[in-house]
Amino acid sequence: MTLIERCEKSVPEQVVKAVENEPIDSKRLARLIKNGRAVIPYNPIHGPEPIPIGKDMKVKINVNLGTSRDHKDEDLELKKLKVAEEYGSHAVMDLSTGGDIDRVRRKVIDNTDLPVGTVPIYQCGLTKARESSVVDMNSDEMFNSVRKHARDGVDFVTVHCGVTKKAIDSLKECGRLTDIVSRGGSFLAAWILHNQEENPLYQEFDYLLEIAREYDLTLSLGDGLRPGSIADATDRPQIQELITLGELVKRSREKKVQAMVEGPGHVPLDQISANVKIQKEICDGAPFYVLGPLVTDFAPGYDHISGAIGGALAAYHGADFLCYVTPAEHLGLPDVEDVKEGVIASRIAAHAADITKGIDVDIDDDLSKARKELNWEKMFEKVVDPKKAKKMRKEKNSADEDVCSMCGDVCAIKMVEDQFR
Amino acid sequence: MTLIERCEKSVPEQVVKAVENEPIDSKRLARLIKNGRAVIPYNPIHGPEPIPIGKDMKVKINVNLGTSRDHKDEDLELKKLKVAEEYGSHAVMDLSTGGDIDRVRRKVIDNTDLPVGTVPIYQCGLTKARESSVVDMNSDEMFNSVRKHARDGVDFVTVHCGVTKKAIDSLKECGRLTDIVSRGGSFLAAWILHNQEENPLYQEFDYLLEIAREYDLTLSLGDGLRPGSIADATDRPQIQELITLGELVKRSREKKVQAMVEGPGHVPLDQISANVKIQKEICDGAPFYVLGPLVTDFAPGYDHISGAIGGALAAYHGADFLCYVTPAEHLGLPDVEDVKEGVIASRIAAHAADITKGIDVDIDDDLSKARKELNWEKMFEKVVDPKKAKKMRKEKNSADEDVCSMCGDVCAIKMVEDQFR
Repeated sequence: MTLIERCEKSVPEQVVKAVENEPIDSKRLARLIKNGRAVIPYNPIHGPEPIPIGKDMKVKINVNLGTSRDHKDEDLELKKLKVAEEYGSHAVMDLSTGGDIDRVRRKVIDNTDLPVGTVPIYQCGLTKARESSVVDMNSDEMFNSVRKHARDGVDFVTVHCGVTKKAIDSLKECGRLTDIVSRGGSFLAAWILHNQEENPLYQEFDYLLEIAREYDLTLSLGDGLRPGSIADATDRPQIQELITLGELVKRSREKKVQAMVEGPGHVPLDQISANVKIQKEICDGAPFYVLGPLVTDFAPGYDHISGAIGGALAAYHGADFLCYVTPAEHLGLPDVEDVKEGVIASRIAAHAADITKGIDVDIDDDLSKARKELNWEKMFEKVVDPKKAKKMRKEKNSADEDVCSMCGDVCAIKMVEDQFR
Repeated sequence: MTLIERCEKSVPEQVVKAVENEPIDSKRLARLIKNGRAVIPYNPIHGPEPIPIGKDMKVKINVNLGTSRDHKDEDLELKKLKVAEEYGSHAVMDLSTGGDIDRVRRKVIDNTDLPVGTVPIYQCGLTKARESSVVDMNSDEMFNSVRKHARDGVDFVTVHCGVTKKAIDSLKECGRLTDIVSRGGSFLAAWILHNQEENPLYQEFDYLLEIAREYDLTLSLGDGLRPGSIADATDRPQIQELITLGELVKRSREKKVQAMVEGPGHVPLDQISANVKIQKEICDGAPFYVLGPLVTDFAPGYDHISGAIGGALAAYHGADFLCYVTPAEHLGLPDVEDVKEGVIASRIAAHAADITKGIDVDIDDDLSKARKELNWEKMFEKVVDPKKAKKMRKEKNSADEDVCSMCGDVCAIKMVEDQFR
């Protein structure tokens, strides 16, 4: 039985555990899962911490890690995993494309209690690409890659089922500044264009659902046609794909398979609320997993900031799950420090949205009370990165001061306290 | 004659120069200045680059620098100034409170063509504080400090005229988590509470306007009661002060003195649009100069990110001028690297808002075109920080590759290009 089926009968243990740190109770979460408004990516083979993603839940964040052809140090990926956990990521995706991909994936699964996601088409496509060409993949190979990942314990998979002939036609007709920037999307688009056949992941979606049922795998319906630039945001190909994803959400729910929907990408500030609204309507309230979105194209080196702006706004408008973006985005594979910067930026975005719903406001309030009392140790307990805050405090100030070197003896807080008392 | 008076007669030379890089023409800018919807902080003694701030203009950013009691290295402040200029700040404020404050200010003015702002009450208050107590300032000393700064060529000054008895009463009645966090605000609040008299900068505002007229000084009406925590955002004391600032905008315009209005501070995401809207209404369209705003209290060490989120949203909703926030905020005085991080975060916020109005979209488009062509040199010309982008590209990739190490041989852009051609 899948989690949805179990939620139809009672409140499963994972659901009880999942709400421990959430603003709702387990009965309500079971109902949301049943109706597809929330998911808990949970493959029993892995058995991760049950992290609920969706309506009425705290906003969650995901860290991507993984090797590439040029960087295949497995230990480095495990270091990134630890940093992701330390700084509060709620999930990790292993996007490895270099070295022994199977081994990296298994190591990641073995080494974390966070739900683990993958994009099986990467491994499938690049194995072919290195033999001959990505367009030589056959449909069995695509589905087998999903099955293999599920059998290893992967909790959720991105599947680019919405990259259909119709969507590619729309792309050709519409024209774009940056055609396709999704790696998985580009594999399937190339495949469709070359073979002049429909995307097997769409054509045989029922088979995908069978595999998902077998392993209770959560589907993350990928947006292979997500815009790769501000100019392409919210265009016809993107929305054409979203319509397909909406249909597939419905079919997933009919088979009691958990599904969420992935979203852009690069979106200007003024289109973010519309993007969330349209996803929520077209996909009947399915959890929305956004990448960024980046609110400008001009900030490589600082795309974690661009992504935090877009992510905060998307989450405020109802996005449920933020895929982090690191400073290395558009420049190269992130290192450990990039991962850390990316997680923290995403956490700030997620938390900024949460507190507008009254969630976790006590963190800010406790910190501000400590700030008023100039109680630095108490402040450090509440901040997003205690290590950095402590380090900066130490470096910028003399040890025996209660104030800080910004104002020194003309501290506003002290000045007013003295007069108010 | 002040700039407003000159705009009433014709289109002054500074106004012609000011629109060179703006989406409107000089006649329209002259009209906006005349009506108080835009300002050009420009003291003829300094004669800086004319930077227009306000309605229909590109969003501008400000960098704060300055010594403190514990850090009085003047050369370091000049280094910060150069970094502010290099990374695209539109103005600087010298907030020095340590060492030879007069000399630092004069050096800053001598060394930049950007408009320079100060907060004269700092120098006035802390001189007294170090002699006896800030509450011993007298009204002459307050006004003389403004005059001295104007005579040195300062282009705009923050004056906390809105910290009135009434606002303090509102603060006492309302109660706050973090009473007052504005340094200038705290000086005047302490002064009022101790002396049981009205704030001279409010009481004798006409005298302040006389000084401003004499030097064509732009007034930045400070928000001494800005919230210092999410919990205090948009409360009665804040809005009480804003009402006063609205009255003072009107009186400034009557005397043909340019005025802008300062705003919060710490504001949750869901209150930002309301904060901009209410300022614009209550202050009859006066340019809005916001500090951040920070969308959470829990990110010291990363407040430039929290501020970029709030700043982008504020600018999108109509804020005209963003005061940068650095990673050192709430921890200590920023160093050169902090200044750089702060300027860049603010530029991302400002640009993200500009492009929603169709301004500077070609930067993003050109960059995205170059990205599609994998033309790295052309990309670097357009990015917010070419040095960092080049450095990261170099460190994370081998020199002879056109793709990047994120995807390597499975580059989405290449994959699709190959099939589309």
